[in-house]
Amino acid sequence: MPPTITAFKTSPDRGQGLARDMRVRWALEEAGQPYEVRLVSFKAMKEPAHRALHPFGQIPTYEEDGLALFESGAIVFHIAQRHAGLLPDEANARARAITWMFAALNTVEPPILDLQTARFLEGDKPWAAERLQLVKDRIRARLGELSVYLGEAEWLAGAFSAGDLVMVHALLRLRPSGILDEYPNLAAYVARGEARPAFKRAFAAQRAVFTGKAATG
Amino acid sequence: MPPTITAFKTSPDRGQGLARDMRVRWALEEAGQPYEVRLVSFKAMKEPAHRALHPFGQIPTYEEDGLALFESGAIVFHIAQRHAGLLPDEANARARAITWMFAALNTVEPPILDLQTARFLEGDKPWAAERLQLVKDRIRARLGELSVYLGEAEWLAGAFSAGDLVMVHALLRLRPSGILDEYPNLAAYVARGEARPAFKRAFAAQRAVFTGKAATG
Repeated sequence: MPPTITAFKTSPDRGQGLARDMRVRWALEEAGQPYEVRLVSFKAMKEPAHRALHPFGQIPTYEEDGLALFESGAIVFHIAQRHAGLLPDEANARARAITWMFAALNTVEPPILDLQTARFLEGDKPWAAERLQLVKDRIRARLGELSVYLGEAEWLAGAFSAGDLVMVHALLRLRPSGILDEYPNLAAYVARGEARPAFKRAFAAQRAVFTGKAATG
Repeated sequence: MPPTITAFKTSPDRGQGLARDMRVRWALEEAGQPYEVRLVSFKAMKEPAHRALHPFGQIPTYEEDGLALFESGAIVFHIAQRHAGLLPDEANARARAITWMFAALNTVEPPILDLQTARFLEGDKPWAAERLQLVKDRIRARLGELSVYLGEAEWLAGAFSAGDLVMVHALLRLRPSGILDEYPNLAAYVARGEARPAFKRAFAAQRAVFTGKAATG
């Protein structure tokens, strides 16, 4: 039985691939693993049946025989532990790749998500415009450091890993703001992630939910 | 050779244990592992020598023979993988405990850290007071869900795990705000964490940096 993941029934980003099921789809594609998708409405996400899988009433979740997980980072890590292709075998290299997963989720992504908060949850507040600049500058501080670290390297820690997968997806959300393009090596890094066949398959699959067309025949 | 971690030379919280070296100290104490501490000034944290260990110029870092890691979540996970006491052995139980580490870091902690941003980075802005209420309500939304999930359980996923360690430490930061005490089961959960002998040893060790008194003999 392939695992079942959950995704939004109605795409909040019109199929741009920004929802967090995209990370799980991408990881499963990198690992060459088939999966089933159950679509969940915004209303059903907050009801007890879904909360039993995800205490915070969000997507994605991940179910396989006898195991239910939530949190995209945890699910990507679970997939990466059990299948080849997302983490190096050598112990120290593996620890470094895992470090980048945590850095993406806990250091780089929070200021990026604050941009969404500033725009959508507080977009009608009198402080919205002035505060948006502060939020953007906090993002730039992190991206400047990441850009220096990456330099001319292709990926963050040797070969492509789950750390890159999570980082690329966190950075993708910045593209419409123009901030990503202020750091050409980071923009190229994100583009390398998007060019991976596994990314393309995952992107097409989530987009098909929005367009109503199945991704593959 | 025991590992070496880094911590702030000058405690920003006057030894209250809120800095992230506390998580690593606590994990090492739970695992019964000795460690060395190198103190780093705010200035030195941003210099190339420290950036070589931590691309974002923060603490903690972790060094052992041939391996250098950063990000408290990654370091706690590394310790938990290599020593008994922080993750269950059974594969599914282990995956669930790891899920709670990611949930603590990526879902629960970001709104809590936004309280710091609202108070300290934007405390002098005209919107500070009104926005603080929005930030607090977003924290309450998460804590309400966490409180329902925890219910009367002692820990989040069976026995105490690295997931609880990171969650308790993320929640601790809320105590001065009074928000934690709005959820009696979460306040008791945090108190259970603080009552652990390993927490107490770690707390005393970080406090000794502030008081200038060595924690032990």
